[in-house]
Amino acid sequence: MTDPAKVRRVAVIGAGTIGASWAAWFLSRGLQVTVWDPAPEGEAFVRRFIANAWPAIQQLGAPCASQDAISFHATPEQAVAGVQFVQESAPERTDAKRALFAQLEAAMAPDTIVASSSSGLMMTDLAQDLRTPGRFAIGHPFNPPHLIPLVEVVGGQDTTPETIDACLAFYRHIGKHPIRLNKEAPGHLANRLQSALWREAVHAVAEGVASVADVDAAVAYGPGLRWALMGPHLTFHLAGGEGGMAHFIDHLGEANEAWWRSLGQPTLTPEVCRAIIDGVAEETKGAPVPALAAQRDALLVALLQIIGTRRPAQ
Amino acid sequence: MTDPAKVRRVAVIGAGTIGASWAAWFLSRGLQVTVWDPAPEGEAFVRRFIANAWPAIQQLGAPCASQDAISFHATPEQAVAGVQFVQESAPERTDAKRALFAQLEAAMAPDTIVASSSSGLMMTDLAQDLRTPGRFAIGHPFNPPHLIPLVEVVGGQDTTPETIDACLAFYRHIGKHPIRLNKEAPGHLANRLQSALWREAVHAVAEGVASVADVDAAVAYGPGLRWALMGPHLTFHLAGGEGGMAHFIDHLGEANEAWWRSLGQPTLTPEVCRAIIDGVAEETKGAPVPALAAQRDALLVALLQIIGTRRPAQ
Repeated sequence: MTDPAKVRRVAVIGAGTIGASWAAWFLSRGLQVTVWDPAPEGEAFVRRFIANAWPAIQQLGAPCASQDAISFHATPEQAVAGVQFVQESAPERTDAKRALFAQLEAAMAPDTIVASSSSGLMMTDLAQDLRTPGRFAIGHPFNPPHLIPLVEVVGGQDTTPETIDACLAFYRHIGKHPIRLNKEAPGHLANRLQSALWREAVHAVAEGVASVADVDAAVAYGPGLRWALMGPHLTFHLAGGEGGMAHFIDHLGEANEAWWRSLGQPTLTPEVCRAIIDGVAEETKGAPVPALAAQRDALLVALLQIIGTRRPAQ
Repeated sequence: MTDPAKVRRVAVIGAGTIGASWAAWFLSRGLQVTVWDPAPEGEAFVRRFIANAWPAIQQLGAPCASQDAISFHATPEQAVAGVQFVQESAPERTDAKRALFAQLEAAMAPDTIVASSSSGLMMTDLAQDLRTPGRFAIGHPFNPPHLIPLVEVVGGQDTTPETIDACLAFYRHIGKHPIRLNKEAPGHLANRLQSALWREAVHAVAEGVASVADVDAAVAYGPGLRWALMGPHLTFHLAGGEGGMAHFIDHLGEANEAWWRSLGQPTLTPEVCRAIIDGVAEETKGAPVPALAAQRDALLVALLQIIGTRRPAQ
């Protein structure tokens, strides 16, 4: 696989929430999708997921799309037969993924590429039993993949540069925003960035600085609004005024280094967990998660429609 | 001052970018605004700033607003005469603010409250020379204050609870989203959260994990989209599915603690600064900051119109 426009058929291996969401997005881009999942209710779950996701996907613009270009298969080998690209979203366990990859490898065409949705594992570990590790990479989406544009692409030590380039080109071709990571790390990059923010948010609650709701508001009514448009570097470049990042560093570099030295190092003790869980219950006034998630997704679609390609420096 | 609805007249003391933006917002809420700034071009700057900001403010809905309910004064004492609330946005220097506060204190009515826009200083330090420190608090906005809803309210050791409550009520009354911080810290809360995220972003560039543009994309095309709607705690509550935060902690608490232990501890060496500055230049393709800021602000207005009061758990 080299030309992303030649990908016509994609396998979704493992079709829980992440795999089903990938399937919906692939279908919306006019691809044929083959699915394998060991759950007995797998097909019904995926079909229901896609039907639920379809209105949002159509609002985001779905060219030549049909929900019906999908087939369900009894084995992973059958699902990957004749596909050009495999998106693997099996459970996050090294042993299970290793065994699955060996099955896929034996059944795939020689130039088929496998991207793993693994949110935290490293391909060097996952590819240890493979004869052809060069064509296996991480392609980590953000939940839900049919709405969030980001995909993190990173290889293991034996992944070829061509595979990385092909993954980046394919994801870009189907309307995602892939990024290239040059080094493996547990949690890749975006989860580590999230975790760094959450750490200080946990610290603020643990130390009684503010309620969970007020800590959340400190992001969502403040810097979070800018982070939907720009990452942390560009945000501070603009904070530097006409002098940009150089002026920002001159002016506020030392202050940030002082804050870094004093950032919290909380532990998720039972007491801290209790404070966070109780605080979220108060914040949400007991609203069930599925209702909150539906509100979130409706707003995400509206945001993505507004932002489109109008981001600063896009 | 106790009833926020009785505030008719607000002083803006120090009218650079932050003060001028506050003045625009106060005017848009139908308040009379008095301004003092030592710069000879101060009045012209503020009037120009307000005229530029006005279309965006009107898009956000400005009841009974006039740009003309503003007056400029030769001294801080004159500006605070007869006002119920003072928003101080002088330069970020402890000595200068202390001297200014003493001047204000001598000229203000006994029940007038002062809120300082200081982004990092603590009121306990700023209030040391005051006879009536009880009515001085931090009211830290996020830039630009006429667009971003967040205001952090925190007192010094002598600030009265009534002053804190009055600040929270006033900001809420004029359409901001104030939060209450129970403890002082350098950088308050939101700047510390921002700095925690930036630290890992700097680390990723310093270690060559990804380009500045890709690190920024790892936020803006991914978790940043959600942070415009929800803070980090609520985000992970939803990531926990029907089991919410309790399930999230059971499932991913240990992974997050492991990532916390491995987060980077970068230093802003000349080499690291160079990599960030060069990376931003590449990311922005040389676009000037004012043009990027104008794009950002137009999108912020559109986002705020969309989000309105529809946030999950709002």
